[in-house]
Amino acid sequence: MSNMENAVEPQKRSRKTHNGIVQPLLTDLYQITMAYAYWKSGKMNDVAVFDLFFRQNPFQGEFTIFAGLEECLRFLENFHYSDSDIEYLKATLPKSTEEEFYVFLQSLTTESVTLYAIEEGSVVFPRVPLIRVEGPLIIVQLLETTFLTLVNFASLMATNAARYRLAAGRRIKLLEFGLRRAQGPDGGLSASKYAYIGGFDGTSNVLAGKMFNIPVKGTHAHAYITSFNNLTELQVKLAERRFLNIYDIVMNEQMLLNRLTGQEENLLDRCIEWRDKILPVLNFSSNEASDGELAALVSYAIAFPDGFMALVDTYDVKRSGLINFCAVALALSDLGYRAIGIRIDSGDLAYLSNKAHEVFQKVANQFNIPWFSELEIVASNDINEETILSLNEQNHKIDCFGIGTHLVTCQRQPALGCVYKLVEINGTPRIKLSHDVAKVTMPGCKSAYRLYGVEGHALIDLLQRSDEDPPEVGHRVLCRHPFEESKRVHVTPRRVEHLHKCYWKDGKTQCELPTLDQVRQRVQTSLLTLRQDHKRNLNPTPYKVSVSDCLYNFIHDLWLQNAPIGELS
Amino acid sequence: MSNMENAVEPQKRSRKTHNGIVQPLLTDLYQITMAYAYWKSGKMNDVAVFDLFFRQNPFQGEFTIFAGLEECLRFLENFHYSDSDIEYLKATLPKSTEEEFYVFLQSLTTESVTLYAIEEGSVVFPRVPLIRVEGPLIIVQLLETTFLTLVNFASLMATNAARYRLAAGRRIKLLEFGLRRAQGPDGGLSASKYAYIGGFDGTSNVLAGKMFNIPVKGTHAHAYITSFNNLTELQVKLAERRFLNIYDIVMNEQMLLNRLTGQEENLLDRCIEWRDKILPVLNFSSNEASDGELAALVSYAIAFPDGFMALVDTYDVKRSGLINFCAVALALSDLGYRAIGIRIDSGDLAYLSNKAHEVFQKVANQFNIPWFSELEIVASNDINEETILSLNEQNHKIDCFGIGTHLVTCQRQPALGCVYKLVEINGTPRIKLSHDVAKVTMPGCKSAYRLYGVEGHALIDLLQRSDEDPPEVGHRVLCRHPFEESKRVHVTPRRVEHLHKCYWKDGKTQCELPTLDQVRQRVQTSLLTLRQDHKRNLNPTPYKVSVSDCLYNFIHDLWLQNAPIGELS
Repeated sequence: MSNMENAVEPQKRSRKTHNGIVQPLLTDLYQITMAYAYWKSGKMNDVAVFDLFFRQNPFQGEFTIFAGLEECLRFLENFHYSDSDIEYLKATLPKSTEEEFYVFLQSLTTESVTLYAIEEGSVVFPRVPLIRVEGPLIIVQLLETTFLTLVNFASLMATNAARYRLAAGRRIKLLEFGLRRAQGPDGGLSASKYAYIGGFDGTSNVLAGKMFNIPVKGTHAHAYITSFNNLTELQVKLAERRFLNIYDIVMNEQMLLNRLTGQEENLLDRCIEWRDKILPVLNFSSNEASDGELAALVSYAIAFPDGFMALVDTYDVKRSGLINFCAVALALSDLGYRAIGIRIDSGDLAYLSNKAHEVFQKVANQFNIPWFSELEIVASNDINEETILSLNEQNHKIDCFGIGTHLVTCQRQPALGCVYKLVEINGTPRIKLSHDVAKVTMPGCKSAYRLYGVEGHALIDLLQRSDEDPPEVGHRVLCRHPFEESKRVHVTPRRVEHLHKCYWKDGKTQCELPTLDQVRQRVQTSLLTLRQDHKRNLNPTPYKVSVSDCLYNFIHDLWLQNAPIGELS
Repeated sequence: MSNMENAVEPQKRSRKTHNGIVQPLLTDLYQITMAYAYWKSGKMNDVAVFDLFFRQNPFQGEFTIFAGLEECLRFLENFHYSDSDIEYLKATLPKSTEEEFYVFLQSLTTESVTLYAIEEGSVVFPRVPLIRVEGPLIIVQLLETTFLTLVNFASLMATNAARYRLAAGRRIKLLEFGLRRAQGPDGGLSASKYAYIGGFDGTSNVLAGKMFNIPVKGTHAHAYITSFNNLTELQVKLAERRFLNIYDIVMNEQMLLNRLTGQEENLLDRCIEWRDKILPVLNFSSNEASDGELAALVSYAIAFPDGFMALVDTYDVKRSGLINFCAVALALSDLGYRAIGIRIDSGDLAYLSNKAHEVFQKVANQFNIPWFSELEIVASNDINEETILSLNEQNHKIDCFGIGTHLVTCQRQPALGCVYKLVEINGTPRIKLSHDVAKVTMPGCKSAYRLYGVEGHALIDLLQRSDEDPPEVGHRVLCRHPFEESKRVHVTPRRVEHLHKCYWKDGKTQCELPTLDQVRQRVQTSLLTLRQDHKRNLNPTPYKVSVSDCLYNFIHDLWLQNAPIGELS
């Protein structure tokens, strides 16, 4: 893998995302019909406050990683209805729609919008607004669908990746291999980006590497191995090519430079010799290893002598793949190159990784090549969070997981349910009632705080009405469950973090945004503030999100005012 | 909804998809490292055949809809490494990579590729190649990941949509409302496109409407309703606006033209009158209906008098939403406008739709407005295939489903497992073995046929070696299970369909591609050829995919030749 290390120097990452798909028409039609009705009824400049939040952590977990903020800010920056957008809307909305409305739309910008948000990459919890948007009703309403699209999948994906990282531990490399199973081409790009933010080390997706400056990784597929039939074929091919003399400079491709002597040597012959030598060491009485596979690995080693990584499960890991890999790695070693390792893409990964590790140790001892016992073992067959936890229990010897489908589609729960709710208009709080308590919104403009305890761990999140005094370090504060009357706790914080920061005002971003790598770092430091029992896979402890006494009473008064009394007869 | 009918005339649909994201770098890095190794070992022009197929139908069903072909052809058409792509690859691949390789890559086109495929929109089954690609190894290998990305989600989505259509029946309208929960912005666009192909009638996604010429639909959200506090507010707003005189032509927005008299009339006053009149009809002794909701609905009706569709569950469907809707619809009716209906987004949909239908009938009878009993009822709360089937059993009165999360993320199974396997190289068949029989590939270049019976139903799919004579109408043919020796059947087809057609050769598309609507039509006609028991939701009968006797023997001979014999000691 290492030969595939992304050699591009760290640089200011590209801001380009989604190639222009993120534009005002990437929305539900009802946002535009509502805009027209607001415009027509004179309500368009009512000052509205919307909260973007979710109601439940994904994956039966007790935490979520917030992501997608930068893309929301880019959307605000570029918000503009083009001529062709307007033309399309004219053809789509009823004929009676007034011409002035289109003039208004085309001049619409996000200059009067103010956006507060939690820092991207932070651990977040249900009901705490991730984003609060304030401004004229018509424009803040028009942002809803696009914001949700940008935050929902990004946060889901970053959370999923962070969970894989927690399951695998810090020592293990994690690579995202999911493009082919992603939900559309851009589903794949978003997955690569947010998997990296969530704690993955790289991706196989080359375009994601190019666009976001994420390390890209990869070796070869089964097709590469099966495309070679036998050793003769390779010899003939190489001879033919030399004969054809297509490019002078590649005359010696069957040969490889011996770095120790400076001489060209025949790699294939050496590999065949080595294979014969290692069979008895590995207790094989005869050679069942595939010659086609060896030919493939030799040709691959000639192309990438400095970072040889081989897929070993095309025919049989133990009886063919491992033997051929060792033969090539030993031959390379003779010439002064150090192989990287193997990839296993099927079978019992715990067993096979231990077997491979054993083989590497035997060879290391027998031929006195200590680094051979440290060869990297990559596993990549349909792996999910539970597989990793189960492999941990079986003492696997895997150094790196390549993870596809389950990661990129978030198979266990493929959508996060962020919503965007009106909570205040012209200073008047608004509430959306529901028979389902969990769906009742928290009215009014609110401030959000995280209170930390002695050991630096987050104790509780607290929502207050925005005109209340913030909680103070060392002062006891009463935190209440938002809906259950009897659930209350006194908290004396050692540190108080104000969660919301202003990110957008007067038509521009209000602070320098962190780089992708800084957001990725933020995920890990933020997770560290969370107690282990909130993060564990099985039956994690819920983290408490509370409201101040004042907000509690405010919500419940408004609720009773608005809820009709049922009648039974 | 009807006022939102897409008024754009049917036209040649836009070919623009994914805004340029679909490019050669949208692939796994290992495709490019393999390409280099092929190039270096002289194998790059070996003639290879790859099959693209899946192994299992999604959603525990027994059929799949094939989609994504046109996007694959566009990818072939536009295949080209740009200067910046090459620059990125140079920075990413090892320094030892030869310069000539990049020269070669940059001149690479898909001119020497030949592609056969099943018609897009067809019903397809496991193991039958959806696409067969032939050409020089290096280029056909480079297509793998992108093809899989384009076919996997498209087919999964179209299949999911087709299943919803089967569950809902032909009478019901189906709308896709999933953008906000989709996997990335383009995940949403792909979902809209392939949901339409699979049998949906429209989408809420405006950009999808613009790009693919799909009908777009939508009314308003809860926020629209909650943004109005009371009736006075509306009166003041409208008065203010008139006073401000922002636009001369919108002076009379509180008023609505009476189409019967040609006079302007006050809609709000009429609505209040009607509400008082209908309360006793619906057996309410007092008015509990929300004034804020009425104000919202009146303002919306003024904006869209010709297609009034109201969300009625913000406060209480029975005690508020339905009453306010009827008041506005009756007032509109007085002035010569016909309302469209209601949308319910929460609660017991079967019960509420019946209740709404009952209310509409009462009003229709009481005030002698027959069309009132035909008002449309749209339901849209977290609906999936099972919900629809369950609602069917409860005799719901819903006319239209708006479906989001479950549809667009394919929640029940968020990925289709299409694979792309090398089956032949330079005329030599290749096989990928596996301990799991289902994963063994079918070697060699194959022809695929569908055999039809007396009633026009598809009986079986048959794969043959490509040099075998095709099956003939009226002649008995032996069809064998590909892996289970004893499973055989004699089939005498009434019709034989050759499933593969050449779509790409000599650098261009070989036939005119169907429009989106034609592909959509194809899905329905193709599904009609499938027996009902294959399509049912519960325990569907598997459709048989067979191989000829000749292909059976060929596979099994090759299998035994390649599989190593285990050894126990």
